[in-house]
Amino acid sequence: MKSDFRFVYNHRVRWVECDPQWIVFNGHYLTFFDVAVTEYARAVGLPNVITQQKTGREFFARKSIIEYHAPAKYDDELQIHVRVAYLGNSSLKFVLEIYCNDALVTSGEMIYVCVDSRARASTPLPDEWKQAVIDYEPMAVEQAG
Amino acid sequence: MKSDFRFVYNHRVRWVECDPQWIVFNGHYLTFFDVAVTEYARAVGLPNVITQQKTGREFFARKSIIEYHAPAKYDDELQIHVRVAYLGNSSLKFVLEIYCNDALVTSGEMIYVCVDSRARASTPLPDEWKQAVIDYEPMAVEQAG
Amino acid sequence: MKSDFRFVYNHRVRWVECDPQWIVFNGHYLTFFDVAVTEYARAVGLPNVITQQKTGREFFARKSIIEYHAPAKYDDELQIHVRVAYLGNSSLKFVLEIYCNDALVTSGEMIYVCVDSRARASTPLPDEWKQAVIDYEPMAVEQAG
Amino acid sequence: MKSDFRFVYNHRVRWVECDPQWIVFNGHYLTFFDVAVTEYARAVGLPNVITQQKTGREFFARKSIIEYHAPAKYDDELQIHVRVAYLGNSSLKFVLEIYCNDALVTSGEMIYVCVDSRARASTPLPDEWKQAVIDYEPMAVEQAG
Repeated sequence: MKSDFRFVYNHRVRWVECDPQWIVFNGHYLTFFDVAVTEYARAVGLPNVITQQKTGREFFARKSIIEYHAPAKYDDELQIHVRVAYLGNSSLKFVLEIYCNDALVTSGEMIYVCVDSRARASTPLPDEWKQAVIDYEPMAVEQAG
Repeated sequence: MKSDFRFVYNHRVRWVECDPQWIVFNGHYLTFFDVAVTEYARAVGLPNVITQQKTGREFFARKSIIEYHAPAKYDDELQIHVRVAYLGNSSLKFVLEIYCNDALVTSGEMIYVCVDSRARASTPLPDEWKQAVIDYEPMAVEQAG
Repeated sequence: MKSDFRFVYNHRVRWVECDPQWIVFNGHYLTFFDVAVTEYARAVGLPNVITQQKTGREFFARKSIIEYHAPAKYDDELQIHVRVAYLGNSSLKFVLEIYCNDALVTSGEMIYVCVDSRARASTPLPDEWKQAVIDYEPMAVEQAG
Repeated sequence: MKSDFRFVYNHRVRWVECDPQWIVFNGHYLTFFDVAVTEYARAVGLPNVITQQKTGREFFARKSIIEYHAPAKYDDELQIHVRVAYLGNSSLKFVLEIYCNDALVTSGEMIYVCVDSRARASTPLPDEWKQAVIDYEPMAVEQAG
């Protein structure tokens, strides 16, 4: 539901993102998710990929789910809604919904794990990163017990 | 499990598919899934996108799930395993597992719906398409009651 | 030279556009060119791909030239400058320059041919499309003799 | 001309590479060029991107030219021909021609510069790399005076 989201990223569908069915190829939604998560992190004040690495941490995708409700077409203006729905010890889950003119086009989620770059093993999310998300989100963010 | 699959598509990871973490960007796995499903359909004797359309039918992606178990890297040789796990009235589910040197890299599933191109509404899968899948697959394919 | 251009399209480099050298993969510049040309056409008032086809015409790329002067990196904010430098009978040439913080990153040109969709043969550019470009561009546009 | 080339890389056009005009999007030809150049280097015995970097060198694209002679379509089987046409002190030029069923689809060239990774400045091509190319190519390779 749109009202669950504070953050929205706008994207106009590119020609190269459309396939011969005149609709966005399914794999490109993960690019939209990625760009929107990047901009969400900027809005929240989280480090981006470059500044993360200076802290010795990186995020790796662990799981993606995408549901295709209606096709997005060339030149459509999409609103990509993003929020963090869960903060674990070392993982976090984003929920995403993409709308075009108030119609739900795509919904999904992305789970990332925070990894220590040197050890190549999962590492706890820094408390200040969690707090920044909690402070940003208007709704309660579920957390690991 | 590899032994569940009769069909395998080989792909060597391209430079353009890797991101600055030196690993395949998560969205590209849906391209790998798409290419492998295309080649699976060819092996089974199903119509491809062009010949489908001559029958007045098209497939649209309905849902994707991807789990990332280990990163694939530049120049890795991947084996993309594909099988149909479920045949519904108008939908079908592919299960995919990607291996590199016997290690599971990615697993996932793709659900497609068969659509009447003119009516833009779901339409039953032709019986001969179902039968072709059942004949091809060594294991029992789950079917709609 | 920046001052040659009236039209600029802004783009922030996406993670998926960067390769393991941490720079934009060369092929993606043609996507940037394509998006910028699309937005140029919108600014000038030319038909887009969909409305073109209603006139029975399409454009096909005929030639691309790209020179890579400096790398663009993840999260860089690019300014993609576009202008029409030449109007032929049935072809037109776009000149493009991409800047990041006043440094020239990439320059190039794209030549397109206007094609009659039914005959699949080149067809003259409509006079009103040429005039729209000439009216938009502050500098003289070279034309076929 | 096909007979100028010793090396050919085969590629079947993917769905995701086609745009709503049912043809390969122009930018994807640079991906085809890149993959074919990678496989050419493997055939010639040159180091790939990873092993290059162990020698402290990288290649950066300097210029691309692409001419589009005929469209490639979904599922077409392309033959991508590659040869080195020029060896400079620190640069080299590849010439590429893509055929489908003996028809020339695309031709072009790619110029790369060899760069010292630490100094980020151009550096001479190692003599053994030049010699490997000369030994591989049946035709004379033009060289810097």
